[in-house]
Amino acid sequence: MTETYRRIVLARRPVAMPQESDFRMEEASIPRPGDGEVLIRNIYLSLDPYMRGRMRDVKSYAPPQQLDEVMVGGTVGVIDSSNNGRFAVGEFVQGMLGWQEYGLSDGSGLRKLDPSLAPISTALGILGMPGMTAYFGMLDLGQPKEGETAVISGAAGAVGALVGQIAKIKGCRAVGIAGTDAKCRYIKDELGFDAAINYKTTGDLREAVAAACPDGVDVYFDNVGGPITDAVLAHINFRARIPICGQISQYNNETPELGPRIMPLLLINRARMEGFIITDFAERWGEGLTQMGEWLAQGKLKYKEDIVKGLENAPQAMIGLLQGANFGKQLVQLGEMP
Amino acid sequence: MTETYRRIVLARRPVAMPQESDFRMEEASIPRPGDGEVLIRNIYLSLDPYMRGRMRDVKSYAPPQQLDEVMVGGTVGVIDSSNNGRFAVGEFVQGMLGWQEYGLSDGSGLRKLDPSLAPISTALGILGMPGMTAYFGMLDLGQPKEGETAVISGAAGAVGALVGQIAKIKGCRAVGIAGTDAKCRYIKDELGFDAAINYKTTGDLREAVAAACPDGVDVYFDNVGGPITDAVLAHINFRARIPICGQISQYNNETPELGPRIMPLLLINRARMEGFIITDFAERWGEGLTQMGEWLAQGKLKYKEDIVKGLENAPQAMIGLLQGANFGKQLVQLGEMP
Repeated sequence: MTETYRRIVLARRPVAMPQESDFRMEEASIPRPGDGEVLIRNIYLSLDPYMRGRMRDVKSYAPPQQLDEVMVGGTVGVIDSSNNGRFAVGEFVQGMLGWQEYGLSDGSGLRKLDPSLAPISTALGILGMPGMTAYFGMLDLGQPKEGETAVISGAAGAVGALVGQIAKIKGCRAVGIAGTDAKCRYIKDELGFDAAINYKTTGDLREAVAAACPDGVDVYFDNVGGPITDAVLAHINFRARIPICGQISQYNNETPELGPRIMPLLLINRARMEGFIITDFAERWGEGLTQMGEWLAQGKLKYKEDIVKGLENAPQAMIGLLQGANFGKQLVQLGEMP
Repeated sequence: MTETYRRIVLARRPVAMPQESDFRMEEASIPRPGDGEVLIRNIYLSLDPYMRGRMRDVKSYAPPQQLDEVMVGGTVGVIDSSNNGRFAVGEFVQGMLGWQEYGLSDGSGLRKLDPSLAPISTALGILGMPGMTAYFGMLDLGQPKEGETAVISGAAGAVGALVGQIAKIKGCRAVGIAGTDAKCRYIKDELGFDAAINYKTTGDLREAVAAACPDGVDVYFDNVGGPITDAVLAHINFRARIPICGQISQYNNETPELGPRIMPLLLINRARMEGFIITDFAERWGEGLTQMGEWLAQGKLKYKEDIVKGLENAPQAMIGLLQGANFGKQLVQLGEMP
């Protein structure tokens, strides 16, 4: 008897906000590893905003997601069977196996995880891509200095929550912008942000930023773009640094949204705005992991996960992520721990 | 008999495009230098786009121009009388004496000029603020590399014409955008740009940029902003650098103009956009002057001046500068060489 597993492919390219019908669940026989290959049973799948960009058939920093192919995605799982001497059955690995319950790998791109050091799910969060994004984006591009003010949009998200805590470690005033009162309370009361703004209920966002940043904004770490970013840019200081990490408010636009031109602001303030992609820092991943792991062990960093169970719920969770419905790092649990 | 001189003050703050009536000519007695002071007879006045920003009563990198005060401006002139041991009558100096035929100085901020090395007017152009703006803006922020493509807006202007020539010295393909066919011919035929685009007559500017930049845009040195910048940004390459030197198309706007949001483009391309002000490089002025002077002496740099005669013509020339009517570095000749 052949066992089967489930996987989700992109059925068609979404227009504006993705719909569940843009994805298709498939069932297939669990494959056997070929020479040099391992079979991995995935336990957690990471859902991340970048996936929306991949669904679009345009030039970007990575090739587009192909139609009828398994959706891309970071995963952690356990070696189920192995024809590769580097990996033993039962070992945990992080990889890019995608939206599926099982996957084959030749071992390239797999990173072994030690579950005694940290829960394996953290390899998709604080000790994975979002953590490294926060670390290098904030420190290398944001260059926070003691006494400065850092504003973070998407502040309760997987990256934003860490950026604000890094700002605090570096001695900054940290101001977060998020979309619910619960998220605002969380980043203030549990993560130690100095101020939080609920952009959905604040009357005048520009005034709210001014009130929360009496000394102006030195670093603006932008995850969302759009009118939130307009409101923050109105208050940047001389030599402000603006790492562009994400623009989630814009990902579902079919044509570029109009907004006030920002170049005069950058000019007057000699400000620097810079987009970055975490893969650019691949060679320094070890440095980031070491430091983030240390801060985590010292209790200086906290994290929160938002876990939905079952691959069948991945499309809806992805849509929720694009709408800000998640509270913490969005994961899908595909299977149980061994 | 007391001799008089003329000066121009800001009579009222312009709304949108300045008008001649926003300025007022005054006549006053030529002052005598006090202790430690010199009296300078100004020969050339520099007109520069930054002056429009100063006329606005808002926070910027420099205090606003005060009403009823002499308009700010760079000048070169000759020492007419001196109570300062550092300056002898007949010496040439560059300073910020403003829109007036004579001015007093305590010597601070004056730079002596040697007319045997270069015409004194160059201290307001290629060997002055515009030259240093081109040098540091292009080299420090633009970081042009051999084989790359650099696009320059305002390419026939005092700064842009030099930026394109520096791009050529560094082995780049230089593409200039200007507003008349004569300017386009000039930057191609006389300055050695590889391609020139007349933004006023080109049907589809975005396509024109694509055609002129078959390998995309690595450096975009922006003097103008607005739709021209939109067209160029559509073609930036990975890791493009975008120094924001000026935004002359926006200076007369009373409210920020709307344009397509650019952050997604910066993100996808990991591009860097950075505003700068040449005074930030004051400590390295000597380095810039030496290198630009060397290139000038070697015939690697050419420059063009657009000189109107008589202080009374300064307001109209300023308005023309904001409209792109000048062809080369805009100067006002206030008096004859001794």
